[in-house]
Parts: sequence; C-alpha cells; structure tokens
Amino acid sequence: MTDSAKSWPDLAGRIIDDETGRRHMLPVRVYFEDTDAGGIAYHASYIRWCERGRTDFLRLLGTDSRRLIDGSDSHEPAAFVVRRMNCDFLRPSRMDDVLEVETRVKELGGASVTLLQTVKLAGRPVFEALVTVVLVAVSGKPLRLSAVIRDAFSPAP
Amino acid sequence: MTDSAKSWPDLAGRIIDDETGRRHMLPVRVYFEDTDAGGIAYHASYIRWCERGRTDFLRLLGTDSRRLIDGSDSHEPAAFVVRRMNCDFLRPSRMDDVLEVETRVKELGGASVTLLQTVKLAGRPVFEALVTVVLVAVSGKPLRLSAVIRDAFSPAP
Amino acid sequence: MTDSAKSWPDLAGRIIDDETGRRHMLPVRVYFEDTDAGGIAYHASYIRWCERGRTDFLRLLGTDSRRLIDGSDSHEPAAFVVRRMNCDFLRPSRMDDVLEVETRVKELGGASVTLLQTVKLAGRPVFEALVTVVLVAVSGKPLRLSAVIRDAFSPAP
Amino acid sequence: MTDSAKSWPDLAGRIIDDETGRRHMLPVRVYFEDTDAGGIAYHASYIRWCERGRTDFLRLLGTDSRRLIDGSDSHEPAAFVVRRMNCDFLRPSRMDDVLEVETRVKELGGASVTLLQTVKLAGRPVFEALVTVVLVAVSGKPLRLSAVIRDAFSPAP
Repeated sequence: MTDSAKSWPDLAGRIIDDETGRRHMLPVRVYFEDTDAGGIAYHASYIRWCERGRTDFLRLLGTDSRRLIDGSDSHEPAAFVVRRMNCDFLRPSRMDDVLEVETRVKELGGASVTLLQTVKLAGRPVFEALVTVVLVAVSGKPLRLSAVIRDAFSPAP
Repeated sequence: MTDSAKSWPDLAGRIIDDETGRRHMLPVRVYFEDTDAGGIAYHASYIRWCERGRTDFLRLLGTDSRRLIDGSDSHEPAAFVVRRMNCDFLRPSRMDDVLEVETRVKELGGASVTLLQTVKLAGRPVFEALVTVVLVAVSGKPLRLSAVIRDAFSPAP
Repeated sequence: MTDSAKSWPDLAGRIIDDETGRRHMLPVRVYFEDTDAGGIAYHASYIRWCERGRTDFLRLLGTDSRRLIDGSDSHEPAAFVVRRMNCDFLRPSRMDDVLEVETRVKELGGASVTLLQTVKLAGRPVFEALVTVVLVAVSGKPLRLSAVIRDAFSPAP
Repeated sequence: MTDSAKSWPDLAGRIIDDETGRRHMLPVRVYFEDTDAGGIAYHASYIRWCERGRTDFLRLLGTDSRRLIDGSDSHEPAAFVVRRMNCDFLRPSRMDDVLEVETRVKELGGASVTLLQTVKLAGRPVFEALVTVVLVAVSGKPLRLSAVIRDAFSPAP
C-alpha cells in the first residue's frame, strides 16, 4: 500500500461481513462527467461505477487487477472480463448525489463469478445489475479460479 | 438538415427495410477512448455505442432527441430513458476495428419500446443487448408514445 | 450533508491551509474506464479528474454545483464553465494507481477564476494544468463572482 | 481495408489538400454521452474528439495506431502520446449538433508533431487546441519520426 493510499483509507470502499453475508460498499459521487443533457446521470455511468465496485472489492480481497494482469496471482497474466450484465435502471440520480455501490457474490462457477450489484441513493436502490465475469488469460482462454480467489469471495461461515 | 450534415451523408447511419424487417445500421470506430488497459474495447463502450444507434435510428425516423426534449413532437418536453438492458458480451473488439450497431424494434408498449441491438465486427456479433426504453416527460411521468413515433417504429407491411 | 456523505468523510477530498496557501486535495483511483490500449491512463481522464477536483473544492467551500445551477447562491441559475486549459502531460499513470489532484487559486477576475491543478503520483507531478473557468448564467451571460464565492476562494491572511 | 470500412467510406473523415495546405476533416455528432447536466457538450468531450481526428488523420496517411503499436511501421511498438495541449473553449455545442474536427500540422520536431485542431459548428470555431504529440516506444523512450511518417505529414509542394 502506497503512502497516498494510506492517506485516504476509504478510497477503495469497505468490505462488510454481517448476517446478510459478505458485501463490498463503494461510495461514488455524481460529477458533471457522469451526467447528460437530460439533467440526470447518464445510463452508462452506472456500468462504470459497478466496475469500480468490482475492482475495489477484488483489491480489498488482496487480488487487485494489476496483480492479475501481471500474472503474479496465477501462472499467466489474466483479467476478469464481463460476460453478461442484466441491468435495471430504477430511478434517476443527479449531479452532486452521493451513491453507494453494493457488490455481493451470488454464485461461483469454475471460471466465472456472478455478482449482484446495487447502486443506492440514501439507502434506496436506483440501479441493480446481475453481472457475470469470467477470468480470462491474455490468450483469451478462460482460467479456473484459483483457491485464493475462490476463498476470498466466500465469507467464512 | 444543416450543411455539415449534408456533407457527411452517412453520419447517422442508414435504415434498411428488407425481408427481415426494418433495422438501423450505424458504423462505429474503436478509438483509444473506447479501449482499456486490457487491450480491448472497454465493456461500457458498447452501452454508449448502442445509445448512439438508438439516437440515430430516431433521428432518421424524423424524431430526434432535441425535438423530443423541446417538446416539439409532443405536448411536453420528453426523452427516452433506458429502463432495462440485458447485455451479452460475446467477443472482444480492438483499437481501430470498424463495428456496426444494428438496432431493431422487438416490441412496442404503451409508453415503452423494446429493441434488439447487435454490435457486429465483420458481420459477426460481438455484443448483443435487449433494451427497453421508456418515453418520460421532464416531470418524470411516463408518456404514451404518439402515433407519429409509433408509426415510425413500425415498418410499412 | 446526507447520511451517505457522512459515512465517507473524505469523499470530497480536503482543503489544506498552510504556509504555501490554500489548496484542495482529492484522491483519485485509476480504474479500467480511465485507461486505454496503450496500457496507461487515457489523456482525457486527467481533464475529468481536474473537474472533479474543482467541483469538490467548490463543494467544501460551501458552494456546490447544484446550488449554483439552482440559483440558490445567486440571483439566477449559473455554472462555472471552462474557458481555457493549458495542459502538460508529464508522466504516465497506470491502472490501480492512487493519484492526488491538487487545486490552487492563481488569480481571481471579475467573472473568472484561474486555477493551477496538479495531478500527483506518490507526490510527483504527472499532469499539470492552468485552468480558467468563468461563471456563466443559463442565458450564456458571464456573471460577476459574488462576495461569497470570492471570499471562499481567498484564504484568510 | 475491411468490407465494413468500405461500406462507410467517410468513417475516417477526409484529407483535403488546397491552397491553405493539408488538413484532415472528421465529422462528429454530439450524443447524450458527450453532454452534461449543464445542457451542453462536456468540456472533456472535445479532447476525445480531437484524438479521434488525430487518429483518423494518421489512418488516412496509411499509418494507423494499430500498426504503430504492433511495430509494423517501425522497429519497435510505439504510440503517439500527448505531451501538451493548449485548449480554448470558445462556444458551447449541444445535443444532436454536427461538428467538424479540423486537424493541421503546425510543426514537425525530431520525435514530436505539433498540430492545430479546431472543432467547428456550421463552419464557426467552438473549440481550438494546439496539441504536441510525441512518438514513444513501449519502453517509454521517444522515437525519431520515420521518413514515412514525416513525409505523410508534409503535403507535396
């Protein structure tokens, strides 16, 4: 962890383990770049925010994207790529809003993970997506999830 | 149509009516802005490209976004907002690729339209989405699709 | 301030007043969305990050964008728009890097503010920009900076 | 050139050689993704559009980004990276506007090219930037411009 990262302890959000299971929470601010001429957050912004949530969830689990890409967590360089996203846009959000991206593991496959991601405004869902990501080597070949990754995604009982 | 638009006749793509029905085709180039450090098109780029396809389909149907927002096509300012998107990321695309975004109407509801959008590379699908958009007034209220919009989306038999 | 904002105290960064004057610091993480196929942060990402820095500087000064746009800080709705940006891209930054956007006021004009914005990686500048923003009413007319905004930008001596 | 590229002959814009010298013109449509809650094109959108213009200028000169990155135009993989950008935001542009990005070579250095890029709406400049790009190897080392690239940028007298 760099000095800069230490100065901003919440930058990657937080993992919460409670009776509802393990989840990751990441705060996201709506900036001008995220809005459109309709005066609300542009719909593809939620897709970007969910990726930040997944990336920081992995980071706090100790398996960040750069280590995957470097191959330092596995035998070859790899990345999680999105395979499927079923998205519901429930309510608009607006400039200056503080949103929270909640990420939960729904299902672990051999090479894939399915996550439920909910973006909330003041505790109320504004966006929901079921997202399947696959671990893929640079060559394009799907890779089995290592025990390290598998354990990280499964909260202790 | 402005002079600039006339100089670039294909800028909004083309509507094709044939035995498979009416569809809109929009060419899209993959630029640096669309790629990510994985060396491929970033997944949210497809979401943006599909919006370009829908916007230009409407434009060629004579109902562009600005007229909707101005209220000149209806009694009050309005916009199509995305309500649901089921996305399959089938294959990667890369810097400099020429993609085609194909948009077809699947279903017309009272205030909603469901579209099938396919992004193709050399004729082969790399991304597919079923997208439901709803016509919403500035006040947030869903609006019934006018006969003009309804007719435009339905190809003559 | 909403409950969500309270849970994430550093979300808008921090204002620092010291012997070098008043400045705002905002941490920014490099995500996949910010990178390109060259493996580094896409150059326009720095432009977006600087806007986040300016917006959060204003926010911590008590004058956020929504209040400007609503007109609650002045007689009419307004926004700061960028008029000029002189940008130096000094070094690359990469996926997972933690950057800090530092924003300082260089000069206050009648309707404009010139800011020096530096993006740093581990304390070392990777990007620098001199940015002039102008307060503009919805009508397009430049507005004089109010005493409230003027005072906020000038640190107590 | 692929079949898709052939179906859309203007997709990469056009090079124009006339008494004012050689320039590249690329049409760009303002979509929702490019706008912000202020109702106008977000300022960083112009930075992205200029990159599209530079990329397509290179493409029509026969030296596209992928060939540079592959190293097929030189001894090692390389890319043009932006070193400096002096930007003037002259007028707003809005949803559905058709813009033209004009790119001209101002100066050729050993490893660098300085370009003047102007974004026009109905022939009138809305944005102007002086942009210096440097040819850099994957290792980070600046590379001398090859005679091929140098000739391509200099119109025949």
